[in-house]
Amino acid sequence: MIHIVLLAGGVSQRLWPLSDEIQAKQFLPLLDANSGEKESMLQRTYRQIQTEFPDEKTVIATNNAQESQIRAQLGNTVSISCEPQRHDTFAAIVLATAFSSRQKRGNEDDVVVVVPVDGYVEQTYFSAIRSMAELAARKVANIVLMGVKPTSPSCHFGYILPASSHAGYTLVERFIEKPTEKVAQELLAKGARWNSGVFAFTVGFLKSIIEEQGQEFSFSYLYDSYAMLPTISFDYAVVEKESLVAMVPYDGFWKDLGTWDSLSSVLGKQGFGQYVKDPDVQSTTIVNNLTIPIVALGTKNLVIAASSKGILVADKQTNSPLKPLVETLSKDKSTIETRVIVVPTGEVTNIPASRAHRTLLVPLAGSGSILLDNFQPLKLGVLLELPCGRETMLRAEEELHLVEVRVRVTS
Amino acid sequence: MIHIVLLAGGVSQRLWPLSDEIQAKQFLPLLDANSGEKESMLQRTYRQIQTEFPDEKTVIATNNAQESQIRAQLGNTVSISCEPQRHDTFAAIVLATAFSSRQKRGNEDDVVVVVPVDGYVEQTYFSAIRSMAELAARKVANIVLMGVKPTSPSCHFGYILPASSHAGYTLVERFIEKPTEKVAQELLAKGARWNSGVFAFTVGFLKSIIEEQGQEFSFSYLYDSYAMLPTISFDYAVVEKESLVAMVPYDGFWKDLGTWDSLSSVLGKQGFGQYVKDPDVQSTTIVNNLTIPIVALGTKNLVIAASSKGILVADKQTNSPLKPLVETLSKDKSTIETRVIVVPTGEVTNIPASRAHRTLLVPLAGSGSILLDNFQPLKLGVLLELPCGRETMLRAEEELHLVEVRVRVTS
Repeated sequence: MIHIVLLAGGVSQRLWPLSDEIQAKQFLPLLDANSGEKESMLQRTYRQIQTEFPDEKTVIATNNAQESQIRAQLGNTVSISCEPQRHDTFAAIVLATAFSSRQKRGNEDDVVVVVPVDGYVEQTYFSAIRSMAELAARKVANIVLMGVKPTSPSCHFGYILPASSHAGYTLVERFIEKPTEKVAQELLAKGARWNSGVFAFTVGFLKSIIEEQGQEFSFSYLYDSYAMLPTISFDYAVVEKESLVAMVPYDGFWKDLGTWDSLSSVLGKQGFGQYVKDPDVQSTTIVNNLTIPIVALGTKNLVIAASSKGILVADKQTNSPLKPLVETLSKDKSTIETRVIVVPTGEVTNIPASRAHRTLLVPLAGSGSILLDNFQPLKLGVLLELPCGRETMLRAEEELHLVEVRVRVTS
Repeated sequence: MIHIVLLAGGVSQRLWPLSDEIQAKQFLPLLDANSGEKESMLQRTYRQIQTEFPDEKTVIATNNAQESQIRAQLGNTVSISCEPQRHDTFAAIVLATAFSSRQKRGNEDDVVVVVPVDGYVEQTYFSAIRSMAELAARKVANIVLMGVKPTSPSCHFGYILPASSHAGYTLVERFIEKPTEKVAQELLAKGARWNSGVFAFTVGFLKSIIEEQGQEFSFSYLYDSYAMLPTISFDYAVVEKESLVAMVPYDGFWKDLGTWDSLSSVLGKQGFGQYVKDPDVQSTTIVNNLTIPIVALGTKNLVIAASSKGILVADKQTNSPLKPLVETLSKDKSTIETRVIVVPTGEVTNIPASRAHRTLLVPLAGSGSILLDNFQPLKLGVLLELPCGRETMLRAEEELHLVEVRVRVTS
């Protein structure tokens, strides 16, 4: 049995302002789908996993704030492991593994495969993941990693240096995290590959690590004592401490959509949301998650991104890091967040609860109802204030357009 | 007696997105005041007029939507001529002249001086205006204009070609509207000057024009039949038809703050609102009228401007016009407008009425009251919906911070 864990709960300042739970990059329908429509990173990666593993139920590892967004994108029957509070990847992977094991009544010989949501890859990536799972099941190593074929001596990735070669895999000599370009050149000459953050291992292997830490490997125990788990990444906590690691090569296209630079290279001239450019605009990527338009005039080599968190205007060639600037922003200045919610005909969507905000809805078009004590019809143009701290649900009879206004009221 | 009319009602797409009545450029505290604080174009021009004409009551020509904003900036005792509906400058100047004449019980020999709000000038500009008023009173010509000393053969301004020279003025040969650079060169060689849109004339002169059109020169008549007045600029309707025109030279600094190019040249590195720039950012002017921050990373020679209408990112060197792009934007997309209102301790501010919006207020900090049927205390964090289409008023006991949310509900 294979447990597939899709890590979807991440929030990174490197893609600010698309970096809070609700407006995170993985939910924006930015990418071209096969159908000619647009899909989100979450939808793309989930679709690719299902194509390779049609019989396995993938578990999405995330947090409460994102659960309703995930159900809205993948359907209500999707399997979700929700962290009780935000934690690092070690805790999230352990919890999701225990969740999947309980749900599927698995055993210690089952294989776990962990896939991050922000890899932009070809379908053959998932064939490589199947090979990883098979090798983990055969226990050729305690952990099996994917080694992506490097396209440059980049300083932004972790490298995996191979040791002995075997049929379909190599063992791993050691890891080198974000080397200098010179060291990266030397690593490439030795056949090193990029670590894409995909892991395969057995349930029993992870269980033994948890038990060595004096804890119990069960979903209910881990959920209740979640805050006690160490705040550490899975790489640091497990992978880099393990001596028997194997690597499966992947030679296809791979792009980590974790920075504006990589995201804009995939989007190219296409953008997202409302914007207009004059004909002189060159190589400017616009991602607009606001309800107001962006106008670009004569700009070159820019990324322009807007959400209710803020507005980024960045030169694509800049080496300046975004994180320290964003950290200087006062946390409490974003007092109002607005977004337009569209519920397709016949569908249902959740409105997450927030205790820190007053949440107001104004139905603008279509028809539908809202779950308060029971389902009550929505009246166009009539403002509704949602009960504080209580999740609610919208149902559309005809495609429903609403404006949601969240006003922060606690300091 | 002098009637000073300050034209403050303008709204121009050339400064989009700061181009609606409430968020217009003339109200943003962008400019350095003498005190080291910031002031708006309206405050600066009004202060400069009062310095030159301390005994004259200036009349601000504007429209209903802007009245409360003007009182908030200049005080409640300021004299305002409100158009019943938006019209061009001819109608606005006629109405304001009649308003001032009635208010001051003037006569036909009084002089009217018309000053646009968006000239960024030295104080000596207003000494030149005094000379213009004196020449108009002496009736050396029917209209006296100001001729600004050109600094380049610009194609963006109207030129005034002088005829005979007299003490302190010249008569005017003719006007040339936005010539080519080549023609502008020739005009400069002949001593032509830029037309800055400042006019002086007698009340009697304007009265005779109105009466020739078969209309009556009285405030109440003009107000009631305002829609019947021709929609035409004062330049076209009056100045260019008049044969006896004089020009007073002004050799000091003058900048028409009507485009992003000129506004950013005055602002320089300074900006407005919430923003951060990394150290690599060069020559980037940021004007942010939103409640969310703007982050600029490695940008060069940009204007970045944001309001609840939209976001502009423009190269400073671009020749592309903004207006056609803005006109492609769907008018109804701006469904929500939010702004933060700050009322200083002890002060009062008006909240304009709108029939097209639901207006919500959320008091965030301070203390004060709101005029509904009577003044009622505001509760922090408690949302208020204002009566539709009715103006209201806020009074601050302690500096009051509120969020105003306007949601468009009519289509």
